[in-house]
Amino acid sequence: MRSSLQQPARLVPLAFVAAITVGTVLLLLPIARTGPGGTDLITALFTATSAVCVTGLIIVDTSSYWTPFGQAVILALIQVGGFGIMTGSTLLGVLISRRLGLRTRIIAQAETRTLDLGDVTAVLRIILIATLLVELAVWGALAARLHWGYAEAWPIAIWHGLFHSISAFNNAGFSTYADSLMRFSDDWLVLGSIMVAVIIGGIGFPVLVDLRRTFRRPGRWSLHTKITLLGTAALIGVGTITVLGYESAAGGLFDPLTISERLLDALFHSVMTRTAGFNSIDIGALQTETLMLTNILMFIGGGSAGTAGGIKVSTALVLILAVWAQIRGEADTTAFGRRVSADILRQALTLIVLAMIAISLGTLHLLSVTTFSLEQVLFETISAFATVGLSTGITADLPPSAELTLVTLMFLGRVGTITVATGLALKRSQRPYRFPEERPIVG
Amino acid sequence: MRSSLQQPARLVPLAFVAAITVGTVLLLLPIARTGPGGTDLITALFTATSAVCVTGLIIVDTSSYWTPFGQAVILALIQVGGFGIMTGSTLLGVLISRRLGLRTRIIAQAETRTLDLGDVTAVLRIILIATLLVELAVWGALAARLHWGYAEAWPIAIWHGLFHSISAFNNAGFSTYADSLMRFSDDWLVLGSIMVAVIIGGIGFPVLVDLRRTFRRPGRWSLHTKITLLGTAALIGVGTITVLGYESAAGGLFDPLTISERLLDALFHSVMTRTAGFNSIDIGALQTETLMLTNILMFIGGGSAGTAGGIKVSTALVLILAVWAQIRGEADTTAFGRRVSADILRQALTLIVLAMIAISLGTLHLLSVTTFSLEQVLFETISAFATVGLSTGITADLPPSAELTLVTLMFLGRVGTITVATGLALKRSQRPYRFPEERPIVG
Ligand SMILES: [K+]
Ligand SMILES: [K+]
Repeated sequence: MRSSLQQPARLVPLAFVAAITVGTVLLLLPIARTGPGGTDLITALFTATSAVCVTGLIIVDTSSYWTPFGQAVILALIQVGGFGIMTGSTLLGVLISRRLGLRTRIIAQAETRTLDLGDVTAVLRIILIATLLVELAVWGALAARLHWGYAEAWPIAIWHGLFHSISAFNNAGFSTYADSLMRFSDDWLVLGSIMVAVIIGGIGFPVLVDLRRTFRRPGRWSLHTKITLLGTAALIGVGTITVLGYESAAGGLFDPLTISERLLDALFHSVMTRTAGFNSIDIGALQTETLMLTNILMFIGGGSAGTAGGIKVSTALVLILAVWAQIRGEADTTAFGRRVSADILRQALTLIVLAMIAISLGTLHLLSVTTFSLEQVLFETISAFATVGLSTGITADLPPSAELTLVTLMFLGRVGTITVATGLALKRSQRPYRFPEERPIVG
Repeated sequence: MRSSLQQPARLVPLAFVAAITVGTVLLLLPIARTGPGGTDLITALFTATSAVCVTGLIIVDTSSYWTPFGQAVILALIQVGGFGIMTGSTLLGVLISRRLGLRTRIIAQAETRTLDLGDVTAVLRIILIATLLVELAVWGALAARLHWGYAEAWPIAIWHGLFHSISAFNNAGFSTYADSLMRFSDDWLVLGSIMVAVIIGGIGFPVLVDLRRTFRRPGRWSLHTKITLLGTAALIGVGTITVLGYESAAGGLFDPLTISERLLDALFHSVMTRTAGFNSIDIGALQTETLMLTNILMFIGGGSAGTAGGIKVSTALVLILAVWAQIRGEADTTAFGRRVSADILRQALTLIVLAMIAISLGTLHLLSVTTFSLEQVLFETISAFATVGLSTGITADLPPSAELTLVTLMFLGRVGTITVATGLALKRSQRPYRFPEERPIVG
């Protein structure tokens, strides 16, 4: 039974490797690049990985380095990558539920124990519809705003609108503007549309389905939906307020801005850190304190089984709930009148520790092959692993070995986390006996 | 019953506050300072806290700023602080065992359920004897070496020997030499004696008692002893090898040194990071990679219920064992044929998360009131919280508010951790019912 279940868990990494390979080959073609001849292998590989893993880190400017063909390839890779991670992780989640004999909340009508073709089709159809609906709406809003508000000709506005709508819903953070979205830093309409797409795409499929089914009855939401929504709201709020505080101080980036601009840019930055990666402000000019806070938000990331990266909001919240329960002296970790299964805590912990190890090793490597500061390097590796794509501006200046490290981190962060999470949930080895208990001293 | 148990847990912080207060007052006296008049309040408070919490961070040079009287006060505070934390945490540990109805491994002969005066006396006596034995032996070795090897007159050699022997056993890291132990960077005898004192003092009383009783029968060691010894050996080994690697590279600090010096200084640095805090090399000149590794070693610290700080070796190992068990798919966290109690994991996790929060807040504050880099500031706050005392050299240049933050971190790291650990172990609130279980998605 085990082998048949591990098959799909292996399928996701293989599919991503295939997509990255195809993308690399396409970007190597001379027609993808504006300059003479084809690009080099590292640039093509890095860009394809960044697109498929919906990260958005770039070593060459998307708008000037790549031709419309190259940009279309990147856009296609983003759509494939985003759709792939959303369907892949959702189906693996269904699989875990089946294997553990749990009632599958995701597709409640199907109660059989095997993942049949009907389920797969249903999941694909719902995700496809949600993707198209959101992307079309945001595309329309952006194109209209760019045409009427910024005097872009219709074909240009439509192309930019399409690119950013897809890039936003898939939390990719790629932009056809050289300065990302900094030119829109006071435009509530543009940044607002982007934020809506980012949040819906990044909140995760299980939450979307749950909301669609029981939108008016919050009492019937699953625990996962509740803690994801609560965590998302809390993180956006805390992020906004802290960025406002640190950057509004004398010498901060918001010093010359109006109140409305400060609010918009703080909110936008807070939402984008988890994990869309567009920026309306210059990341390299932020206070070190803001960068540290951004690091934490990036590490946590968005919702499970969506287009967002990071360790996921629910993973972080399970850990926080456990600590809170321990402080209150309660034996069970509880939230919203539900008890969080004890093995879920250990899964969350394991995922977080593995993520920290990956980021630490990446940081050590970047430190040893560059002269950049710890601030810059740590920000870059967390951004890569959590597939955020924000940068203090050092990406293009990294040596090839550091770029390969980032490629590895992006892949591990995107595909590794859900593969490991699936593996952790499924793997059970039974001992025929239990060892006697002992209590080592803690602290 | 609860209140009578919380009394001793409150006694430890109160005793430390009292010792720091007395120390501050004594250091404020004009006879404590070589310069004219008494010192200022911040300097006295900082130095007294650093001494009582056996941290070793200094904002004025111990050898030139303080008179022999001032140095004697510091030495007395170190001895009181080290003895206090060792007896305090040991007695709190005994208390937890009693409360939870566990067989007390520490003082096996007493099997009654209340902590009677006999136990306290026994613990105090054993700790006193161990302290005196080690300190006397190291004192003798150091004084002899300083007299015959470095031509120090007997009174000077005896004073320096006494100061460093007490400072080492109590993991304090204070030195009467302005450059800490950098002048002995090639002296296996001096650094070796210091290391022995540091390791014995920092391994923790429970391990010492266990070893004394069953030294030749490792099979009868407690799980705590086994994982503390294993963890200590592993951390010393990993630390030594990594420091050797990073600093032996071209441009590293060890570049001009002989093999013997490299080995000695790497080993010494690895041992001192957890958490004695003497240095035989210039910390400010270390590679950023070495500083990051040092951060991790400092955070982990030494053994429980000894003079060492940090979250403790056993705490870190419980977490690592849990992650390892999860990766193997085992339901129980096991080691050496024993099962680690499940609530111990949540206690360890809580302690680590609280430590990270304290360090993060301290780091954010120091970043916002100084212009030092994240490397420097993070190193300083971890060093303070884990009561290590190593510094990249910024301590003396911090503004008063930052110094007060370090004072707070030293106190929290020293007294807060064991108080919280005791609280976590003792607090049990019982619900009359359990909530239904749910499994939020992780990753
Ligand atoms: K992204
Ligand atoms: K120390």
